[in-house]
Amino acid sequence: VELLDKLKQFDLPTTLRICAGTDGSVTYLLEVMTHNKVEVITRCQKVITATDTIAKMLMIMPGEPVNHREVMLQVQGIPYVLACSLAPVSTMPQCIKDDLMQADIPIGRILREHKLEIRRDILNIEIKSGEKIFNDIPVLSREYVIIHDEKILIWINELFPVDDRWDV
Amino acid sequence: VELLDKLKQFDLPTTLRICAGTDGSVTYLLEVMTHNKVEVITRCQKVITATDTIAKMLMIMPGEPVNHREVMLQVQGIPYVLACSLAPVSTMPQCIKDDLMQADIPIGRILREHKLEIRRDILNIEIKSGEKIFNDIPVLSREYVIIHDEKILIWINELFPVDDRWDV
Repeated sequence: VELLDKLKQFDLPTTLRICAGTDGSVTYLLEVMTHNKVEVITRCQKVITATDTIAKMLMIMPGEPVNHREVMLQVQGIPYVLACSLAPVSTMPQCIKDDLMQADIPIGRILREHKLEIRRDILNIEIKSGEKIFNDIPVLSREYVIIHDEKILIWINELFPVDDRWDV
Repeated sequence: VELLDKLKQFDLPTTLRICAGTDGSVTYLLEVMTHNKVEVITRCQKVITATDTIAKMLMIMPGEPVNHREVMLQVQGIPYVLACSLAPVSTMPQCIKDDLMQADIPIGRILREHKLEIRRDILNIEIKSGEKIFNDIPVLSREYVIIHDEKILIWINELFPVDDRWDV
């Protein structure tokens, strides 16, 4: 409810507010919203070693392997979301390991296909300006974790450009 | 994806399409969409005995107790969704039993507050006409189940009136 109040403060297009507020899959909402398939453009995909900061975020031990992924979700060439994710490799359920460490499948689709029971806990939502990624357009940034089996499956930071591309 | 294709066929306001397509909480999306708190108007709340049909839907034995609930979700007096739900009582996790068998808390809020790990499987989406409930306005009807611990926690049928109340 606190985050909801926060979302209210920003002057956002309704569809962006909904995508940024959902506790469901953003990929799926984008597809419903645009009537089109979401394309995933991979900008980065590698296994890193958890620093102290990352270990705290993921509730793992420093030094453990973490899958780092940065993908742009776009529809018909228009980018809607840049999603950066960190996923602990050691505790990752075997059934989704291959898909999750591949670059080109959106996380929402992976969870749905493997019928995982999860919850999404939204941690923070804020407006940032001066982000180069969307050509200096202000971005709405939200952080959340996907919890499975009482462990953090993935930490995600999504950046949404705030402009009229959301008026669909 | 099949259901997504189905949603495409109907000529629906974007916000309705998103609410009807989400695999997250509809209550939550309504609140984000309208900038307001969802009110729950209870039309029915009782424990019934599972008929053969209901038992099949819920994957339980006929004769088992089932919590039946019908609530209207509305915002500032405007009804947006009629939600009818059936929840098997015997397999209901103790922590949410009291809340779930109370009439006036939306399910999305119960799940979020108790931090339950779940998934939503959408079973069907269709347009129905001649439903008296929304004064003969056509309704979008969708059926889905909320799965927890590999069992059906709740079967839900949501009816959304298809008109311009969704143009927010």
